[in-house]
Amino acid sequence: MRALLLDKELQIVEDYPTPKPPPGEALIRVLLTGICNTDLELVKGYMQFRGVPGHEFVGVVERAPGAEEWEGKRVVGEINAACGKCPTCRAGRPTHCPNRTTLGIAGRDGAFAEYLTLPVRHLHTVPQSLPDEAAVFTEPLAAACEILQQVHVRPTDRVIVLGDGKLGLLCAQVLALTGCDLTVVGHHRRKLDILARRGIPTALEGEPVEAEADLIVETTGHPGGYASARRLVRPRGTIVLKSTYHGSVDADLTMAVVDEVRLVGSRCGPFAPALRLLALGLVGVTPLIEARYPLSEAPAAFEHAARPGVLKVLVDIGK
Amino acid sequence: MRALLLDKELQIVEDYPTPKPPPGEALIRVLLTGICNTDLELVKGYMQFRGVPGHEFVGVVERAPGAEEWEGKRVVGEINAACGKCPTCRAGRPTHCPNRTTLGIAGRDGAFAEYLTLPVRHLHTVPQSLPDEAAVFTEPLAAACEILQQVHVRPTDRVIVLGDGKLGLLCAQVLALTGCDLTVVGHHRRKLDILARRGIPTALEGEPVEAEADLIVETTGHPGGYASARRLVRPRGTIVLKSTYHGSVDADLTMAVVDEVRLVGSRCGPFAPALRLLALGLVGVTPLIEARYPLSEAPAAFEHAARPGVLKVLVDIGK
Repeated sequence: MRALLLDKELQIVEDYPTPKPPPGEALIRVLLTGICNTDLELVKGYMQFRGVPGHEFVGVVERAPGAEEWEGKRVVGEINAACGKCPTCRAGRPTHCPNRTTLGIAGRDGAFAEYLTLPVRHLHTVPQSLPDEAAVFTEPLAAACEILQQVHVRPTDRVIVLGDGKLGLLCAQVLALTGCDLTVVGHHRRKLDILARRGIPTALEGEPVEAEADLIVETTGHPGGYASARRLVRPRGTIVLKSTYHGSVDADLTMAVVDEVRLVGSRCGPFAPALRLLALGLVGVTPLIEARYPLSEAPAAFEHAARPGVLKVLVDIGK
Repeated sequence: MRALLLDKELQIVEDYPTPKPPPGEALIRVLLTGICNTDLELVKGYMQFRGVPGHEFVGVVERAPGAEEWEGKRVVGEINAACGKCPTCRAGRPTHCPNRTTLGIAGRDGAFAEYLTLPVRHLHTVPQSLPDEAAVFTEPLAAACEILQQVHVRPTDRVIVLGDGKLGLLCAQVLALTGCDLTVVGHHRRKLDILARRGIPTALEGEPVEAEADLIVETTGHPGGYASARRLVRPRGTIVLKSTYHGSVDADLTMAVVDEVRLVGSRCGPFAPALRLLALGLVGVTPLIEARYPLSEAPAAFEHAARPGVLKVLVDIGK
């Protein structure tokens, strides 16, 4: 099959072996795949990943031995394939299974290829009304929903989202659904306007933003985001950390003690609510799409996605 | 009156002006005061404090204009004197009032003196059965209770306390009351044995401790405590930060995101439950007392308290 292979650099391979689903897994024909910041980090060496990247996808189940009812269904899939047997899995935290493989990120080929395999229990049927270019956002939207899974956001809370990247725009839209008093701070008027058109208040970095917020969601992807979040959060407030990047932060944890601030690391989230929000039309994702490329031009798609300020770039796999 | 004055260095002053209680405040004759690590930090320059230090005390109300029912009562007192009017106070977070003064720490003379003043609403009567040398631990024990105020500790949780200093020993005893599976890691066999004699499991630094704990309480007072806590906490676990020190920490916040760890800064706590625990005899504090000095020898008491490995040093004010 045709696949985009990351082996120090990206290349299109025409005769990459088509995967064979092991017991419990399905063979999925990929339709559409999104490029995530994590994919761009993998190209820079993050996780020392070698293989086919890609974890934001929509596809059709081609074969599901022993679970034939799935065949022909259009699906999205949870990306952390857990062992299901270790104490972490048994404690109900499979996304943190120490033996997990992660689609296109660790130990498992991903979705920039004509086919992939995933455990059947990870699949979610896509409602017929939902086009591929919306369904492909399920995985990052689930990561935004994870905030509400971890933190009780009250309708009276004042909330600031830092960052107007792809994840920031999704987090903001999910948080706005709580009725909270939300402001999104970013660097790009063009991107903030996607939210402003939905009625969500925004501010360009440098414009005055009232501090003492109850909740800060840090999505900037930069180490400096932590200091900004600390400056804006109220005593006993919460900072949700969404950014992942190389390196560490020079953090004044003593001030976090004095102000009794709560920091919550937040990663992958639940797919079912993300699909519900998409199906209900409560989150607008198509304005985030900047470009679509065929799989044969996936390296160019990655270059496009890596340019500063660019939002979502999609890769059509079937074309 | 006689007072211990911190003005770059510590000195006994015999004719320090006796404070006059402003409206709403009581004049308190101090009986016994404890030396806290924060006091030692003040001497090193923390908070640029100039005045009378001391915030762990027990005393007798001498005068309380307009609240005469308090006169003659033996009391302890909450140390953050809030304005009661600002949005933070009105939101029910007076210990974080931006206009607050803090007894013997910021903007208000403290308890290493024959008299102090505090708002009447900050006072708590000490049960008659409780000796001064137990009541003087109310303030640090309240700080230990703050953990249970902020975090739901389940009886099935595995909990590790890092640090066997004064605060670590109090936190450990409070946590043990939840029935949780507790281990305390410290540097000093002698101090850990205070807990071991109460049946609380302990380990010397370097001895094997099972990782993947649900909750870590970091009380070491050193920047290195954070890395130890990160190493021992499970994915989606909680780290309570109790240490305050000069400077910042090189923190790998990306790993906190990947593991979805929760950090909770924790400072001052509620006095009423601390007094209840002391009155019930559920927390043993007198084994933490290393020495008692009269006020006239308070500088020597501070030197004693600053020696490595020393627990609580008390200063008898009336003697």
